[in-house]
Amino acid sequence: MATEDNEVEDHRPLVLIHHLPSFKLPLQDRLITHFRLFDSLASPDASSVRALICVGTTPVTADTLDHLPSLRLVVGSSAGLDHVDLAECRRRGIAVTNTGDANSENVADYAVALLLDVLRRVSAADRFVRSGLWPQMGEYPLGCKIGGKRIGIVGLGSIGSEVAKRLVAFGCTVAYNSRNKKPSVLYPYYANVHDLAVNSDVLIVCCALTNETHHIINKDVLTALGREGFIINVGRGALVDEKELVQFLVQGEIGGAGLDVFENEPNVPKELFALDNVVLSPHLAISTPESFEALNEVIIANLKAFFSSKPLLSPFQQE
Amino acid sequence: MATEDNEVEDHRPLVLIHHLPSFKLPLQDRLITHFRLFDSLASPDASSVRALICVGTTPVTADTLDHLPSLRLVVGSSAGLDHVDLAECRRRGIAVTNTGDANSENVADYAVALLLDVLRRVSAADRFVRSGLWPQMGEYPLGCKIGGKRIGIVGLGSIGSEVAKRLVAFGCTVAYNSRNKKPSVLYPYYANVHDLAVNSDVLIVCCALTNETHHIINKDVLTALGREGFIINVGRGALVDEKELVQFLVQGEIGGAGLDVFENEPNVPKELFALDNVVLSPHLAISTPESFEALNEVIIANLKAFFSSKPLLSPFQQE
Repeated sequence: MATEDNEVEDHRPLVLIHHLPSFKLPLQDRLITHFRLFDSLASPDASSVRALICVGTTPVTADTLDHLPSLRLVVGSSAGLDHVDLAECRRRGIAVTNTGDANSENVADYAVALLLDVLRRVSAADRFVRSGLWPQMGEYPLGCKIGGKRIGIVGLGSIGSEVAKRLVAFGCTVAYNSRNKKPSVLYPYYANVHDLAVNSDVLIVCCALTNETHHIINKDVLTALGREGFIINVGRGALVDEKELVQFLVQGEIGGAGLDVFENEPNVPKELFALDNVVLSPHLAISTPESFEALNEVIIANLKAFFSSKPLLSPFQQE
Repeated sequence: MATEDNEVEDHRPLVLIHHLPSFKLPLQDRLITHFRLFDSLASPDASSVRALICVGTTPVTADTLDHLPSLRLVVGSSAGLDHVDLAECRRRGIAVTNTGDANSENVADYAVALLLDVLRRVSAADRFVRSGLWPQMGEYPLGCKIGGKRIGIVGLGSIGSEVAKRLVAFGCTVAYNSRNKKPSVLYPYYANVHDLAVNSDVLIVCCALTNETHHIINKDVLTALGREGFIINVGRGALVDEKELVQFLVQGEIGGAGLDVFENEPNVPKELFALDNVVLSPHLAISTPESFEALNEVIIANLKAFFSSKPLLSPFQQE
């Protein structure tokens, strides 16, 4: 990713694109107008670079930062930043930005898509038709009605709020859990996820992954959700105790799951492949061209603000 | 389906369950409390039966009616009644009921489920994960953002209205076509489907199948919809010229389709099985337990009204 050589003068600030080999920043070409890009910690530019774009969930560790003594800004390209050592950034005086609300609508759409798909068995029905079983087997097992379902939203940030808005239009009721009750929100609040699960037909997991929320969906919560309950996860894989979830699904102890994220991506527990009450998705919730446009804009805006000493557009704040 | 013999007295009115061998009326047991049921046109009861329940899309033809000289009521178990010879019923003075609005919400939910599934590629992504391709292939092709999409609803009856309500919550805009402009509706009206297609990203087909609406989605409409356009059909297969649709899909001349109904069910054109931009569903849109409950209630209510000479609950009225 060498930039064009321009010996005369090049005022574009230097920016490191920090990414695992399998991750690419969408629409990266647009950045070249504004910034000189490089992508290796081993580059001679590493010692002087002041800003880094972290692609996807590429880890930013203390060791990463050790290569970058001049770094003052980490620009995340996702909403959650559990892959960034935030404490270490804070200690070193490095600012961190995320994508703010840029992708909330896309993620909320996808959460509802997974919910409808699991409850109405769309993907499983598509499999049934494609395998040629319809003429042989005749009728297909029933799904569940969406209206009247009690939706429990785990993490009512901008994604969770968009999910709620959509599901209310289907006649669902909404309640939520988050670290604190939100004074401006009228949906019922549950101070812990277990109580929310007891009172929900579907849990939608869309909170940030932190030390406190790791495995927030555990055996107790799944038991409370029960045999007729469903889990949708569009947050991070490690919000759910995946081993337990697999056990509950295999043994029919919860009703089903729609999963866009997994604990050990891109590896998905093989036991799930045989189940028709599960929809499996390769971390797609933000993936639309519009979303990548919005992503690019917020990344560029944060970098421009930084290099002209203006306030950052979306400094990362934990809920 | 012989009813218990009760020589002493049995005041339950006689009702014919008219069904193709592959169709069963869900929750049929409940009817036995109220009615004496039989299910063969060859039965000696056929000559005296006054009411018939038509299961699913079992045809009610002039020939069917010839077996039933005393018939005065056909109770449909679906919203659309294109399988019933309505003109012949009218000529013979036979009243006809459908399910009214009993299933509108379920069908609308399913239309939105198909739309989200096709545009965000949920079923295709699930297939991708289950086939083990994620670790090998890495990133998955992008879907489309839902917000901002221009939705064209073909047939703004109770199903279409419920679809509109849901999609507005996703930030979509809505327009519609129907036989007549609806004075109480604020969405833009197009007098023909072609113009609606020109101005839509997604067409949702949910009108009744009649002589006028047969193949309402034809080659011209598909051309007007264009390469980035999508079709969702939760009405009847024959609303769409299926041969043309298959050609358009195979040649990439429209963006994709979500199809719950087909022209020759349960047969689905095999060419569609290879396409990832198509979701195929075995006529499931009404299929939830709650829907079957509602169905049963409206069937029983219509029959009870008929046998006590009260106004029918949901006489069939063509839009």
